[in-house]
Amino acid sequence: MTTSLSFHRPRAVILLSGGLDSATALAIARETGFDCHCLSLDYGQRHRVELDAAVRVARMLDAREHRIFRLSLRDFGGSALTDDAIDVPTEGIRPGIPATYVPARNTIMLSLALAWAETLESRDIFIGVNAVDYSGYPDCRPEYVAAFEKLANLATKTGVEGNRMTIHAPLIKLSKAEIISRGKALGVDYGITLSCYRADADGRACGVCDSCRLRREGFLSAGIPDPTRYFRESPPRRV
Amino acid sequence: MTTSLSFHRPRAVILLSGGLDSATALAIARETGFDCHCLSLDYGQRHRVELDAAVRVARMLDAREHRIFRLSLRDFGGSALTDDAIDVPTEGIRPGIPATYVPARNTIMLSLALAWAETLESRDIFIGVNAVDYSGYPDCRPEYVAAFEKLANLATKTGVEGNRMTIHAPLIKLSKAEIISRGKALGVDYGITLSCYRADADGRACGVCDSCRLRREGFLSAGIPDPTRYFRESPPRRV
Repeated sequence: MTTSLSFHRPRAVILLSGGLDSATALAIARETGFDCHCLSLDYGQRHRVELDAAVRVARMLDAREHRIFRLSLRDFGGSALTDDAIDVPTEGIRPGIPATYVPARNTIMLSLALAWAETLESRDIFIGVNAVDYSGYPDCRPEYVAAFEKLANLATKTGVEGNRMTIHAPLIKLSKAEIISRGKALGVDYGITLSCYRADADGRACGVCDSCRLRREGFLSAGIPDPTRYFRESPPRRV
Repeated sequence: MTTSLSFHRPRAVILLSGGLDSATALAIARETGFDCHCLSLDYGQRHRVELDAAVRVARMLDAREHRIFRLSLRDFGGSALTDDAIDVPTEGIRPGIPATYVPARNTIMLSLALAWAETLESRDIFIGVNAVDYSGYPDCRPEYVAAFEKLANLATKTGVEGNRMTIHAPLIKLSKAEIISRGKALGVDYGITLSCYRADADGRACGVCDSCRLRREGFLSAGIPDPTRYFRESPPRRV
């Protein structure tokens, strides 16, 4: 027997890129009981086709709403993802911050999420950052998320009035394999997500950029078949 | 005798609204020796004519560059400045956070400044916030600025690599009269700035919104003639 409940679920804003991690973060937010308002950013990214994946993911996971904001970070450049003259590395993950780092990207996206959350009377923002199987981006680390949460509570009327804003980063300490296992248990179809920085117009992945390598390794470690469509006939077996 | 120096001045990013405070912050950054890269945001503000003032101010104060980014915060609403259905208060400054508060506005603008600063290899951002003669916005307080600076150093490659990012808020503890006196000494022509939230298309001010009241009181206290053009024939003598 199902019971119809009349109360409203609390609202959360979810940053959604269309990739594996943010899809899982959305699934977790939904499972937690939030009404999910998804925000994507069309920032002039090389792999703009990821936004098509974001649309599919929001629909699959019953988001209440999905908005795509447009703000070109190509005007700034300085990243392989926003400047076509800088190549995306394909040789494997190296120490240090890679060329795909986009200056202040997560800070800009969290700021937009904060503005939206406040007007929605939401106190919860979800971001799918991860600091285990990741590329070494500084704005994916726990200390960064904690600093943004502190800022969010100082910056807003919501925070000043004592209604605490929370930045949820539920994947931050999970391995990629754990993220995938968690998402599978929550019904995420990773076949509709897109992680590749060099994806073609059909959304097929290269298999060799850092994002593809981390993803593929995650499926291997989790013992779950990789549903990714690659544009190379045989992706490298060693990741 | 003048000496020609061959070194480059360090770069700073200056948030420039076109109002009195940000013009003064720009003048201070210039006086300090920075090469000034000004950033304005066309966010759908009711007083969009302030952007014309920003263009004039950047030119007057020899900015190296002035960019106006467009990102509509009308999509979020929730403020008298971004929702025409909410009136701008004209009855005088009251306790609490007023209807002109724009959720996360300074956080969004500082995030953009951070992205630009990093690609410019600049380590200095200027913002003309003030926590003395102000409207009570939470994102104008010293603790907010300190929290953003901390975030900036955790968020960026620049910060992680040990090159400290600094958020300069040179006006934060000054009265409006002190800001005006400082700017006058640095050659700012306040007649070309625009502070009014209800300015008409010609850039004339209403004289009665909070921003006009603070500005007018500042000129009175500083003993400096108010160069503001008002669209009312006689602005109220009492502010």
